[in-house]
Amino acid sequence: MNNIKFLRLVSKSRLLCGSYDKYPGLKKLVNRSSSTSVSISQIMKEKEIFHDVLPGIIDNLQASRKISQLPELASWIKKVLESNLSGGKHSRGLMTMFAYEMLEKPENLTDEKLKQSRVLGWCVEMLQAYFIVVDDIMDGSTTRRGVPCWYRMPNVGLGAINDSILIHCAVMETLETYFGKTRHFVDVIRLFNEALLYTSMGQHLDYTTAQHTKQDYSLFTIDRYESIVQYKTSCYTFRLPVLLGLALVQDVDKRMYADIDEICFKLGRLFQIQDDYIDCYGDESVTGKAGTDIQEGKCSWLAVTALEHSNEAQKHLFAKYYASKEPEHVASIKQLYEDLKLPELYKEKETEIYEDIVQRVRALPSETAPGFFFKLLETIYKRKH
Amino acid sequence: MNNIKFLRLVSKSRLLCGSYDKYPGLKKLVNRSSSTSVSISQIMKEKEIFHDVLPGIIDNLQASRKISQLPELASWIKKVLESNLSGGKHSRGLMTMFAYEMLEKPENLTDEKLKQSRVLGWCVEMLQAYFIVVDDIMDGSTTRRGVPCWYRMPNVGLGAINDSILIHCAVMETLETYFGKTRHFVDVIRLFNEALLYTSMGQHLDYTTAQHTKQDYSLFTIDRYESIVQYKTSCYTFRLPVLLGLALVQDVDKRMYADIDEICFKLGRLFQIQDDYIDCYGDESVTGKAGTDIQEGKCSWLAVTALEHSNEAQKHLFAKYYASKEPEHVASIKQLYEDLKLPELYKEKETEIYEDIVQRVRALPSETAPGFFFKLLETIYKRKH
Repeated sequence: MNNIKFLRLVSKSRLLCGSYDKYPGLKKLVNRSSSTSVSISQIMKEKEIFHDVLPGIIDNLQASRKISQLPELASWIKKVLESNLSGGKHSRGLMTMFAYEMLEKPENLTDEKLKQSRVLGWCVEMLQAYFIVVDDIMDGSTTRRGVPCWYRMPNVGLGAINDSILIHCAVMETLETYFGKTRHFVDVIRLFNEALLYTSMGQHLDYTTAQHTKQDYSLFTIDRYESIVQYKTSCYTFRLPVLLGLALVQDVDKRMYADIDEICFKLGRLFQIQDDYIDCYGDESVTGKAGTDIQEGKCSWLAVTALEHSNEAQKHLFAKYYASKEPEHVASIKQLYEDLKLPELYKEKETEIYEDIVQRVRALPSETAPGFFFKLLETIYKRKH
Repeated sequence: MNNIKFLRLVSKSRLLCGSYDKYPGLKKLVNRSSSTSVSISQIMKEKEIFHDVLPGIIDNLQASRKISQLPELASWIKKVLESNLSGGKHSRGLMTMFAYEMLEKPENLTDEKLKQSRVLGWCVEMLQAYFIVVDDIMDGSTTRRGVPCWYRMPNVGLGAINDSILIHCAVMETLETYFGKTRHFVDVIRLFNEALLYTSMGQHLDYTTAQHTKQDYSLFTIDRYESIVQYKTSCYTFRLPVLLGLALVQDVDKRMYADIDEICFKLGRLFQIQDDYIDCYGDESVTGKAGTDIQEGKCSWLAVTALEHSNEAQKHLFAKYYASKEPEHVASIKQLYEDLKLPELYKEKETEIYEDIVQRVRALPSETAPGFFFKLLETIYKRKH
């Protein structure tokens, strides 16, 4: 699998742009483990293999000693998982699988561990489903991926909170089934517990920031924004998949861990800043949706950067028009963003984080890790959706 | 501690009644490890020692590498825990501590493990707090232990769902801090995960039973009631504290586990049936509260037993008047209970379960376990509140 352009799977593929010229060594590094051209059908096959693992995981859950005692619950858990794991790109799950495949030396790759990496990938997807179910209730959201949010489904309601606990239990039970007797068990349990803690810490920061505003944007600072992103997004979107993949790798150079942490946090930051930018400036024909961050008063990178660069009059204007659904108010905020040259600042920021990550990746004391991270970076940099 | 009448701590003390006469060996067994009379001040001291452990647990959480990075979160977690762990009898936590003290042979008791048993006790209390926070949201409850439910506190709202996740993380982080380097770590993690799964399975059964009714009481059956109690109550009220205490004990006879499971499930059933009976027939001057199970349409033991013994006309009357706040409707239901001789059926049922537990406890292949369970049973049997 080392030679598969997994980026196309993790997100939709795009070409690495000018950065190759800036970093002549980068192209070589990126291509070192992807020198063979791979057909689309092979790529799809990899993705299929990942998806083919899920029914077995759900079957094992239903058949487990604890759950099979209550067939009504076994059916319900199947329904909860199938509903909340469908749709979406499954990029975190796929990343987990690819992390193991690419971080492991080819001579050490085993079928057993490849299978385990896919199971871990689905556990990451379940963790995300857990947070999505809860998040939608807390935010009062109405739809998710084109269908009503889980708590708005018939016969669900606030029972969705308990369903989210069942999803979390499904993660732990799956880890027990597939890893309970392996030496990886404690490591993976710890990684999931840590990701859960960090993500809920980030959720708290995010929730209190949103609750705090009533034309008071004193919490909309770059520092707070970066904390929210680091805890709420980076941890389970990048760090957890990468560290889970790494947990299965033989003979890991432990000196890498601090750097990998830092790289994952910065990848998450890059990813989130882009998300926020695309929400406002993305091409709807490419993204498939209209951004609503301004209308919803989100603590986005554009909002905190605007406030950072605003004079008193501009701050006043921001407080007056932000978080409003009136088209002319939204237009005023967009005009403020233009006046403050946010698109230019964004491009500078994107390049800055990108270059910082590249430096850190190049310095990793590992044969396999740089190739993996450059590929990951390639999926993210200059993305349009 | 073996000689302390811990029952008085676990619940308020009461005397074991006629059952001593029925089971001449019981009094001897119960008293075997409580032959010394202990003063109230000593009993209070034990309870104090348990409570003295909590501030250290919270301090350690705040100081942990993961949480101390965000002082705002450290303060918040302290607040969430202190608010949601105060009030209540802490009977599950105390039971955990006493389980270790009484199930361990005196010559094997160590200060270190006694401390650990108290920490585990607080983790059980945190697990309960987790479920209470969620339960109150799902049920739309307004008060808990005389104060507004957590989600109704200022600046909390639906952020309470995320706070419940933080409480769960606090359990896992505390286990990591106090047990991460011990051989008990994996066992206690497994016990908590299992309790979480069973309790959320029970919550689902309970929630769907409550949602299902709209004058349709087809789900109000004894079998379903017993399933709900077994999963939702017994598991974390009896089984988890007992098995956690046992996890610390040296040289456990593993043949006991199946019997202990059964005993704990039956203790939970006894406990819940009593709760349901007391809700309707308890003396308000003793219980301190007026029951509302009929008004709220709860799937109580009285309700399912009434339906089991009703003819068609009585079933119709039940469906018509149950789950109503009208005093005359409540009175009609209470009259139906009298007509069906539920108080007599209750006394028979209580004795039946009690005797069954006694038989099972006597058969345990252990020196210490019977004494412990008889004491536990003593706290429950014929309780009035």
